[in-house]
Amino acid sequence: MDLDIYLDNSATTPLCDEAKEAMLQAVTSCYGNPSAVHGKGIEARKQIELARAAVASVMGAAPEEVYFSHSGTLANNTAVIGAALAREKQGKRIVTTATEHPSVALAFDALERRGFEVIRLSPGPDGAFDPMELLGALDRRTVLVSAMLVNNELGFVNPVETIAQAVRRAGAPALIHVDAIQGYGKLPFKVKTLGADLLTVSGHKIHGPKGVGALYVKKGVHIRSVVYGGGQENGLFSGTENVPGILGFGAAARALGSVGDTLARVRARRDELLSMLSQNPAVKINSPKNALPYIVNLSVPGVPSQVLINYLSQRGIYVSAGSACKKGHRSDVLVKMGLPPVRIDSAVRVSLSRLTTAEELRTFAHALEAAVRDLRVKL
Amino acid sequence: MDLDIYLDNSATTPLCDEAKEAMLQAVTSCYGNPSAVHGKGIEARKQIELARAAVASVMGAAPEEVYFSHSGTLANNTAVIGAALAREKQGKRIVTTATEHPSVALAFDALERRGFEVIRLSPGPDGAFDPMELLGALDRRTVLVSAMLVNNELGFVNPVETIAQAVRRAGAPALIHVDAIQGYGKLPFKVKTLGADLLTVSGHKIHGPKGVGALYVKKGVHIRSVVYGGGQENGLFSGTENVPGILGFGAAARALGSVGDTLARVRARRDELLSMLSQNPAVKINSPKNALPYIVNLSVPGVPSQVLINYLSQRGIYVSAGSACKKGHRSDVLVKMGLPPVRIDSAVRVSLSRLTTAEELRTFAHALEAAVRDLRVKL
Repeated sequence: MDLDIYLDNSATTPLCDEAKEAMLQAVTSCYGNPSAVHGKGIEARKQIELARAAVASVMGAAPEEVYFSHSGTLANNTAVIGAALAREKQGKRIVTTATEHPSVALAFDALERRGFEVIRLSPGPDGAFDPMELLGALDRRTVLVSAMLVNNELGFVNPVETIAQAVRRAGAPALIHVDAIQGYGKLPFKVKTLGADLLTVSGHKIHGPKGVGALYVKKGVHIRSVVYGGGQENGLFSGTENVPGILGFGAAARALGSVGDTLARVRARRDELLSMLSQNPAVKINSPKNALPYIVNLSVPGVPSQVLINYLSQRGIYVSAGSACKKGHRSDVLVKMGLPPVRIDSAVRVSLSRLTTAEELRTFAHALEAAVRDLRVKL
Repeated sequence: MDLDIYLDNSATTPLCDEAKEAMLQAVTSCYGNPSAVHGKGIEARKQIELARAAVASVMGAAPEEVYFSHSGTLANNTAVIGAALAREKQGKRIVTTATEHPSVALAFDALERRGFEVIRLSPGPDGAFDPMELLGALDRRTVLVSAMLVNNELGFVNPVETIAQAVRRAGAPALIHVDAIQGYGKLPFKVKTLGADLLTVSGHKIHGPKGVGALYVKKGVHIRSVVYGGGQENGLFSGTENVPGILGFGAAARALGSVGDTLARVRARRDELLSMLSQNPAVKINSPKNALPYIVNLSVPGVPSQVLINYLSQRGIYVSAGSACKKGHRSDVLVKMGLPPVRIDSAVRVSLSRLTTAEELRTFAHALEAAVRDLRVKL
C-alpha cells in the first residue's frame, strides 16, 4: 500500500504545480547564462528578475534587496559570517539562541574560532527565548544578533520583532539576522515590521525547488561574501545562477497567495489533528500550544522514533525524527527544553504544508493509533 | 529570424534530452530530502548515488571520491581554501597560474589576506604555463598547487600531468588541485593518470543542469569545508542536496559516451570552421593551435566584441566576449598573453559542444563574414 501521505514538509516539500511548470519551461527553453550579454543571456536575466520580485513581495522587501543563493544554508552562512566580518572593527560580540539550525549554529562556532565572543540564549519551557535575557546580553560591541523566526523542530515562534526593538533601544551597532526558512510563506511577516537587516529564506520549504535560497539584505546594509568567484548576485553569491531553481522558487512564491488565509486554514487542520490525537493517552505533544501549526512534534514514549517512522513509512506515510539535518543525533532543542530522554528518543515531527488535506491528517491519526497498538505491544 | 545557433557552450549549455528527462522525473516524483530516514528520503538518496557513480566514472574516480556541490564555484572555493587551511601547519606557500577562473583566483586572493604566500605563474605565448617554471617556485612549504586543465577563454590545455609528477619528485607536501570544469567530458582524462588530489567539475558545462558541481577528493585526502550546516556530502557541502540538479548531472554524464570519440568529431568540425575563417583576413584566431577544439577565441580588429555579439545575437547566433563571468572586464588572459589592445577589445569566444553541428558552424561562418562586411564599413 502506498498512500504517499507526505508529512515531512519542514524537511522539504514536493514541487507545487506552478513551480513544476516554471522549471519545465526553464529546463526546456531558458538555458542562457544570465551573465552572458547576448539574447539568451538577457532572457535568462529577465526571468530571474521576475522571480526576484515574486520572492521579495512575500516578505514585503524591494526586489533589489533580495539575492539568490544556491541554498538556504549558504544564505545563512553568508548572513552570519558576512555580517560579523563586515563589522568586526566595531566589536566582536554576537548574541544568538541555543536552538538555531546548524547552518547558523555552526557558522557561529566558526566565528568563535576566529576570536568572536558568541552568547547563546537558552530556550524557555516553550522553546522560544526571553527578549529580556537578550537585553542583558547586549552591549555596545555587539555587532550581530541572530534568531530564527520559527523553530524547525517544534514550530515555536521567537519574538523577533521585540528583539529588534530592544536592540535598537539599547543602541547596539548590531545587525539583526533572522533565519526565516521555516516561517517564510507560512507566517505572514514584513521585513520592515520585523526589524530585520538580514533575513534568510529557502525555495524547497514552500513547494519550490531544492538548490535555491535567498537572502534579504536591507538597503544600505553591507556584508561580506563567503564565496569567491564571478561576482553573481551583486558579488554576494558567486557561481552561475541555478536558473531553473530560481524560476521555480519565483513561481512557488507567487503560488502562495494570502499567507494569512492559508495559515488560518492550516491551523484549523492542525487543531483537528490535535483533537484526534488527544483521545490517545499514549501520544504526547511536544510542540508548544502557540507553535506555528505547520509543525506538530509528538512522542509515543516507549516507541523509538525510528521504529515509528519505519512503521509509517511502510504504509506510505512520511514523518521525520527531529530535523532531517540532524539525522542520527538526539535533538538539541528537546534536550535544552528539558524533556525526559524517553520522550526525546521517541519524538517524531509531523510537518504540514499548505497543500496538506484534512483527509491526509485523519489517515495519519488512524495510522498512529494502529502504530501505538502494534508497536507498544511488541516492545 | 531566430536560428538559435548557440555557440556559448563554455558559459553554459542547454540541457541534453537525457538530463531533461532525468530532471523532469526528479521534479515530478523524487522529492524527498536525501537526509530523511523514511521511504521518500531513502529513494532520493539511492538516486543520488546512481548519479554519483555516473559522474565519477567519466573521470575514472571511485563514486565515494566524488562529492556534489551546489556550484562549480563552491567546489573550486572548497578545494582551494579547504586544502590550504587543512595543511597550513605544514606550510603557507601555494603555487598556481595567473590565468585561473575567478572562483580559484579570488579564493587565492582571500588566502593571501590570511597570510598565505601565493605564487602565480605567467602564461607563455600559447597561454599554457611552463612546468619548469613551476619547479623553480616549489619548496618544502608548498602545500597546494592548483592549475586549470583547460582554459575557459582560449581553450589551451595546461600540462597538469607533468606538473603533478614534478611536484611529487620535488618532495613537496603539496596537494594538487585541478579545475577541470572546461575539460570534463571534453578531454579524456583519468584523475589517477593526471595525478590530481582534488579536481573540480560542473554540471551545466556538459549539457547538465545549473546549480550543481562536484569535487573529486582522492581517497585518504582530507580538506576543510567552507560551508557550515547539516553536514551533507560527508560534511563537505552542507545544504539540502539539489536533487533534480544532481540527477540531471548524472544523466548528462551518462549521455557523454566516449569522450575521445566525441573529441575527434568536434575537432574535425572545429578544423572545418578554422579553414572557413582562414579565408577572411579580417578574422584573427586568438586560441593557440593546440587548444581543445571546443573553444575558438577570435578577433575582428576594429569591431568591438559587444558590437559583434549584438550583431550575431540579433540573428539568433550566440557567442560571448571572453568568459561570461567577467562581463565588462578586459580579459586578463589575453592581456597576459601579450595581445595588442585592439585585438583584445574585439575578442569573442565561440564555444562548441558535442551537440554542435557542422551546419551550425557553417551558418556562423557566413554570418561572421557578413558581420565583417557590414560592421567594418560602418565603423
